[in-house]
Amino acid sequence: MSQREFSVAVAGATGAVGNQMIACLEERNFPVGELTLLASERSKGKKLKFRGEDVLVHPIGPESFKGVEIALFSAGASVSKEFAPIAARSGAVVVDNSSAWRMDPEIPLVVPEVNPHRIKDHKGIIANPNCSTIQMVVVLKPIHDRARITRVVVSTYQAVSGTGQKAITELMDQTKAIVNGGSYEPKVYPYQIAFNVLPHIDVFLENGYTKEEMKMVNETRKIMEDDSIQVAATTARVPVLYGHSEAVNIETEHPLSPEEARQLLAEAPGILVVDNVSELRYPLPIDSAGQDLILVGRIRKDISTKNGLAMWIVADNIRKGAATNAVQIAEIVAGECLK
Amino acid sequence: MSQREFSVAVAGATGAVGNQMIACLEERNFPVGELTLLASERSKGKKLKFRGEDVLVHPIGPESFKGVEIALFSAGASVSKEFAPIAARSGAVVVDNSSAWRMDPEIPLVVPEVNPHRIKDHKGIIANPNCSTIQMVVVLKPIHDRARITRVVVSTYQAVSGTGQKAITELMDQTKAIVNGGSYEPKVYPYQIAFNVLPHIDVFLENGYTKEEMKMVNETRKIMEDDSIQVAATTARVPVLYGHSEAVNIETEHPLSPEEARQLLAEAPGILVVDNVSELRYPLPIDSAGQDLILVGRIRKDISTKNGLAMWIVADNIRKGAATNAVQIAEIVAGECLK
Repeated sequence: MSQREFSVAVAGATGAVGNQMIACLEERNFPVGELTLLASERSKGKKLKFRGEDVLVHPIGPESFKGVEIALFSAGASVSKEFAPIAARSGAVVVDNSSAWRMDPEIPLVVPEVNPHRIKDHKGIIANPNCSTIQMVVVLKPIHDRARITRVVVSTYQAVSGTGQKAITELMDQTKAIVNGGSYEPKVYPYQIAFNVLPHIDVFLENGYTKEEMKMVNETRKIMEDDSIQVAATTARVPVLYGHSEAVNIETEHPLSPEEARQLLAEAPGILVVDNVSELRYPLPIDSAGQDLILVGRIRKDISTKNGLAMWIVADNIRKGAATNAVQIAEIVAGECLK
Repeated sequence: MSQREFSVAVAGATGAVGNQMIACLEERNFPVGELTLLASERSKGKKLKFRGEDVLVHPIGPESFKGVEIALFSAGASVSKEFAPIAARSGAVVVDNSSAWRMDPEIPLVVPEVNPHRIKDHKGIIANPNCSTIQMVVVLKPIHDRARITRVVVSTYQAVSGTGQKAITELMDQTKAIVNGGSYEPKVYPYQIAFNVLPHIDVFLENGYTKEEMKMVNETRKIMEDDSIQVAATTARVPVLYGHSEAVNIETEHPLSPEEARQLLAEAPGILVVDNVSELRYPLPIDSAGQDLILVGRIRKDISTKNGLAMWIVADNIRKGAATNAVQIAEIVAGECLK
C-alpha cells in the first residue's frame, strides 16, 4: 500500500519563512500529495520549486483552502486573522507562524520538543511560537523538569532574517554601500543596521518593553505550562543574516551544576551541546545557519546567585525558529491522522 | 602668569587607544608642554599629529620617561608591567589603560564620575578600568547610592575596536570580501566576525567565564568599593566598529521606579539619557561613536523580580571606555599639582 499523502498549502509562500517551509517539506520528506502555494496578489504568477517541479503561486482568497488538509501559514498576523479560521472551517489543520493566535487560550502553542501533547487539543489552528522563544524553551524545558526554573533573564542578538527577505536585502545593500564609502538610507529598520545594534524588535508597549520581549515572557509561560516562571528579556537586532543568539541567565529552585546541565541538555531532543571552551568551541550564528539543531554552550554557573546557570543559545531563526518547528508540528498532525 | 604646563608621554601612541589619547589631550586642551610619543620598535620613525605639528614616535625604553610628569599607557599589559614602574620611579604619574595593575590592592582603579577620591592614594600608578566596566559603573553608581544594588546581570555587544586597529581592519576587509562573494580568513579573531557574533572576549578562565567577563565582576566591585555587589556577565563581540552596548538587569535592595532612575541618571555626571521609545529614541552604538557621554535608555522595570530595573547602556569604547577616562584622570592629577 502506498503511503497516505496530504494536500498541503503554504500561505505566505514567497517570504523567507514560507520559502523555508517548502524546503523543509521536501527535505523532511513530508507526505505531500497536492501542494498549494499562496501569497498576496503581488506574487501572482510567480513560480517556486518543489521536488524539482515549478509550482504556481496563487493569490490567497476565501476559496484557497478547498480540499487542503494541512495549511502552513507565514503571511503575517492580519492574513492569519482573516484566513486561518476560513482554512480551519473548510477542514484544514492550520499551523500558524504569526503572532495572531499564539496567546489565545483556545489555541495550542507548540514546540514539539516541549509540549507536543497540546497538539491534540486543537480546534483547527495550532500556533507556532516566536523564533526567539522556540530556541530558548527547548533548552529551558529539561532544566525546568529537573530543577524548577524560577526566573530567566535573557538578552538576544537577533538576525535580520527574522524581519524577512527585505531586511536581508537591506543589511547586504547597506553594508556594501558603507564598505565602499557610500551610504544607504534605512527603509526596513528605523536606523542603520549595518555595523550597528538596535535594541528594538517589534513595537513598543505601555510597560516599556517591546512586543518581541513580551512574547518571550508570555509564550515561554504558555509553552512551559507554568505561569510562575519569571522572565525578563531585552531583544536586540544585530547585523547578522541568519541565526539568533541568546545570553540566558537561569535561576532554579533546586541546584543544578553546569556539568549536570550539560549532560541533561546533551540527552535532550533537538539540542546540540557545543561547549568546550578550552578548544574555543561555542555556538556561533554562522554555524547554526542551515541546520535544525539548537546549539548550546558557554554553560557555567551564574556566579551572582545561589542556584543559577548562565548559557549561550543559538539557532537558525528561519528553520527551527519558524519553518522547521511548523513542519514538525504538521508531522505530528499527519501522524495522528494515520493512527 | 602663563598656565603651568606638563611634560606628557603617551606609551602605545600608534594604537587605536593611544591615537585617541593624543586626540583627547588636544580636544580637551590638556596643558601639555612637551609631548613624548612612545611605541614599539616597529613604529620607529613614524610621526603623529598633535596640535597640527608632527611628533616623532620613539621606541619605548628605560630612559623614555626622564622629565615626564604624566604618562598615559595603552601598550598592553606586558609593556605596562615592565615600564609603568620605571616611569613612576622616574617621577611620572602613570595612568595605565592595561589590565596589568587594575586589581592590585595598592593601585587605585578610577572612573572620575565614580571614585575620583581614590586618585590621591596613588603611589605613581593609577589604573584605568576595562571599557565595558567603565560605561556600566558610571550608570550603576547613582543607582547604588540611592537604592543599593545587590545584583547585576549584564550581556554585552562589544565593538571590534576594543581589540585594536587590526580588528577594525579585519572586520572591514572581511565584510568587503563577503559582500563581494569572496571569503577572508580570520586572523585576529578565531572565527569570522563579519555577520556573526562571538561569545568570547579575552581568554577563558577555570570557572568557564572569560577574563573580560570577570573584569566586569571584579573591577565593578573595586570601583564601587562594595564587594557585596553580585555580578554575572556574558561578553560577546558583534560586527560593530565603535561603541559597546550593554543589556543590564539590576536588582536593588530598595525600590527605584524607572521614572526615578531616569531622573537620577539625567542629573548624574557623564550620562546622557536617550530614552523616549514612543519616538523611537534609544541608545545606538553608531550614535555613541565620536563623543564622550554614556548613553542610557530602554529604562524599565525588570518585571521578573521585585526591585529590579532593566536598561541599555552604550558608549564609545575607545573614548570614554579608554582614552577619555584616562585623560580625565590625568586632568585631576594635573589639577592636584596646581593646588
